[in-house]
Amino acid sequence: MAKGLVKRSEDYSQWYNDLVKKADLAENSAVRGCMVIKPYGFSIWEKIQRGLDDMFKATGHTNAYFPLFIPKSYLSREADHVEGFAKECAVVTHYRLKVDENGGGLIVDPEAKLEEELIVRPTSETVIWSTYKNWIQSYRDLPLLVNQWANVVRWEMRTRLFLRTSEFLWQEGHTAHATKDEALIETRQMLDVYATFAEEFMAIPVLKGLKTESEKFAGAEDTYCIETLMQDGKALQAGTSHFLGQNFAKAFDVKFLDREGQLNFVWGTSWGVSTRLMGALVMAHSDDEGLVVPPKLAPIQVVIVPIFKNEDQRDAIAEKVNPIIKQLQDSGISVKFDNRDTQKPGWKFAEYELKGVPVRLAIGPNDLENGTIEVARRDTKEKQLWELNDQLAIRISNLLDEIQSNLYEKALKFREINTHEADSYSKFKDILESKGGFIYAHWDGTTETEERIKEETKATIRCIPIEVKATPGHCMVTGKPSKQMVVFAKAY
Amino acid sequence: MAKGLVKRSEDYSQWYNDLVKKADLAENSAVRGCMVIKPYGFSIWEKIQRGLDDMFKATGHTNAYFPLFIPKSYLSREADHVEGFAKECAVVTHYRLKVDENGGGLIVDPEAKLEEELIVRPTSETVIWSTYKNWIQSYRDLPLLVNQWANVVRWEMRTRLFLRTSEFLWQEGHTAHATKDEALIETRQMLDVYATFAEEFMAIPVLKGLKTESEKFAGAEDTYCIETLMQDGKALQAGTSHFLGQNFAKAFDVKFLDREGQLNFVWGTSWGVSTRLMGALVMAHSDDEGLVVPPKLAPIQVVIVPIFKNEDQRDAIAEKVNPIIKQLQDSGISVKFDNRDTQKPGWKFAEYELKGVPVRLAIGPNDLENGTIEVARRDTKEKQLWELNDQLAIRISNLLDEIQSNLYEKALKFREINTHEADSYSKFKDILESKGGFIYAHWDGTTETEERIKEETKATIRCIPIEVKATPGHCMVTGKPSKQMVVFAKAY
Repeated sequence: MAKGLVKRSEDYSQWYNDLVKKADLAENSAVRGCMVIKPYGFSIWEKIQRGLDDMFKATGHTNAYFPLFIPKSYLSREADHVEGFAKECAVVTHYRLKVDENGGGLIVDPEAKLEEELIVRPTSETVIWSTYKNWIQSYRDLPLLVNQWANVVRWEMRTRLFLRTSEFLWQEGHTAHATKDEALIETRQMLDVYATFAEEFMAIPVLKGLKTESEKFAGAEDTYCIETLMQDGKALQAGTSHFLGQNFAKAFDVKFLDREGQLNFVWGTSWGVSTRLMGALVMAHSDDEGLVVPPKLAPIQVVIVPIFKNEDQRDAIAEKVNPIIKQLQDSGISVKFDNRDTQKPGWKFAEYELKGVPVRLAIGPNDLENGTIEVARRDTKEKQLWELNDQLAIRISNLLDEIQSNLYEKALKFREINTHEADSYSKFKDILESKGGFIYAHWDGTTETEERIKEETKATIRCIPIEVKATPGHCMVTGKPSKQMVVFAKAY
Repeated sequence: MAKGLVKRSEDYSQWYNDLVKKADLAENSAVRGCMVIKPYGFSIWEKIQRGLDDMFKATGHTNAYFPLFIPKSYLSREADHVEGFAKECAVVTHYRLKVDENGGGLIVDPEAKLEEELIVRPTSETVIWSTYKNWIQSYRDLPLLVNQWANVVRWEMRTRLFLRTSEFLWQEGHTAHATKDEALIETRQMLDVYATFAEEFMAIPVLKGLKTESEKFAGAEDTYCIETLMQDGKALQAGTSHFLGQNFAKAFDVKFLDREGQLNFVWGTSWGVSTRLMGALVMAHSDDEGLVVPPKLAPIQVVIVPIFKNEDQRDAIAEKVNPIIKQLQDSGISVKFDNRDTQKPGWKFAEYELKGVPVRLAIGPNDLENGTIEVARRDTKEKQLWELNDQLAIRISNLLDEIQSNLYEKALKFREINTHEADSYSKFKDILESKGGFIYAHWDGTTETEERIKEETKATIRCIPIEVKATPGHCMVTGKPSKQMVVFAKAY
């Protein structure tokens, strides 16, 4: 087809890469592993940011900003953390370039070597907890509820736009509390915020759970996550919320005087989502014709395409359309009127289909005579002829709501169909190979068995689900006792 | 005094540093030259961002995101640009750390040396123009109007919170146009956007002008700027807008097919403001008691402090205050009710004075009986007793408007008083030493004379003003002909 998208059924991975580029979401830059987020892609990310930021503020958090650079020695302060993050990172060793006296062009000035190397932050626990030490003295300073929107860098060898890039954008919340209970409640609250956002804004159902020991955040006591299922049957971790215990408080000596005058270490959490959500959004809903963007995150919710053969018709349509635009905007709907005469209507139809605009209105000379307008929805591709009257804005508004829920319902149904139980390892492998999706199975709780399953099948434990009744059983691999089923999948 | 702020008249520089820290705007981090922007400071920055971003979008710009890292070779592509930016910068040379086998802790892995060093962006012209090369083919792709909100790094030896830090936050607009005229119009339009924002939101009058050859942006044909005057008589450059000519288009080979089918280089602009604006905001309005934040940028516009001696009074006041809060919020006013019993009213009064909250309401048992409320404005420190009735919200709203204009008028008057003309070099030096401020004087247009004045007096040419009638004269130093007066000042 004209858009040059391969079908999902033919090559899902190629389809994704092509779509991200062709729909103007992002592209690779000249710097290995770093992407350029293009204006259209960024406008969706801005909607995601705004939605999440409002929810963070509604739960009492404020934003702040901490340095991009972390002194090398900070990374070593928390033993597990350094294991997880000190490996693949961008290291700043010098602070000046100079012109080579031997004609070698611009070179690093050997005189300008830093005494201690700086790491471009892969995550900011260390630099933030070193700051919190000065911010927290007494219980009156707690809880401290801070979030940061920032760029972070993790040197990745294999990168994919949005899903895994060396530099990415994210938010990271870092909170400090007087009691363990309060920190646990915060950890779960932010997991719920992420789940609500994913389901209500992104129209993606999520599975909430705990990570296993081997998959949890380096430096956390517990890592909670939301897991989503993509159209190719692979899982994608969309957000994590960590209960840090007193690990970073101890590493950075952050104590507070409690109400009884006792000095105690504080309790911490951290939680984050990133531009990876953009990848989830694309892979959860889009189709062979292009993006499908849920109305709540669509930069353009309604596009109006005029069908005209000459200037007179063009003018007559514009005259009719202007009050419609106003009516829609007054109802809080973002609308674009594509009146260009440099492109044909068919080209425009394909373009906005590719960009995933939820609703397309088309209006031509016949419609002017009949007082009608063609309404096409992106999700089902249904078209209807509507009467042009003062009910239009309210009907469009309802249609946008309907598309939003339909996308969620469709994704939920897809997940239900692609969720299975395996009572034996052979059945597990069968399902994994033939169908993919989420597989519930019993596991003995050991890292050894987890590793063996991963090596043999490439499936990982996505999470220990927290919203299902725990029924004991026996590990599908070793036959040892299992407290409850866990969820496996191949994952991004 | 209790807040521990030195008076401006005693030590302006110390007053500024202390105020920024004590009012919870920012503090130094453990990383040399990098600051932490604290929650209260960041909430003001968010208001600045939102205000500017709305204006950028209203003038047709969209946001995007480009990589943090720039390959070293890119910097050399534009000859002037490399001179200006390749010197003091953060250089990434390696991509991995490892544990030293000889027990030296975490060290840079010598095996993980980058083939080409990466520079942490000091500004993004190079990486953006290398991207534009692929985005621009024909006149249909123009104009390209893109902005980015980002962090940038320029290695600074002497840093001051907000005014000069190694890492800072900013926005950088980068546009491409088919004609020189269009690019020039864009350059001036964005200068006007900055000027309007500074005057209407920040309540700071600005002087618009052109930079001299020696002060212009490395890589630009012309640099326009807005210059502001601080309370100590020193100037602060608050924003710049650059006409890039075809310099970057030529350096990165960005051509387009025009309507006639001819291949031409495009014309460019770039423009930016940064967290430096926070410094300007503090220094323009604040006083010996603390910050004075203009209502349009105040995270808290109105604070309500209850005066109570016991629980009953506290409850009775809260009951009275709740509908007031609702009334104010419904009028779009951000309000905080500080009901804490852990701090005395006097402490709270000082605290919100320090934080620059524009309006403080106080209400105690007498007010309950009399149906009154005490209204104190931060700018003039006037207090009045107002009747508690349903006109309160509208009166407060008017008061906020009045404070906003009063701050602007006051700053404008200050600038008028501190703007002088010098018709001789000796008079120039006199004014500079005795009064400071902006000094209009004739200059022969040469870099030599400019340098000499700078060396002898520390004053620089802030700009060649563009909104005054150009009257010729003779250079105050050399007596050579001068086309018009230019504006000198000592500057931040």
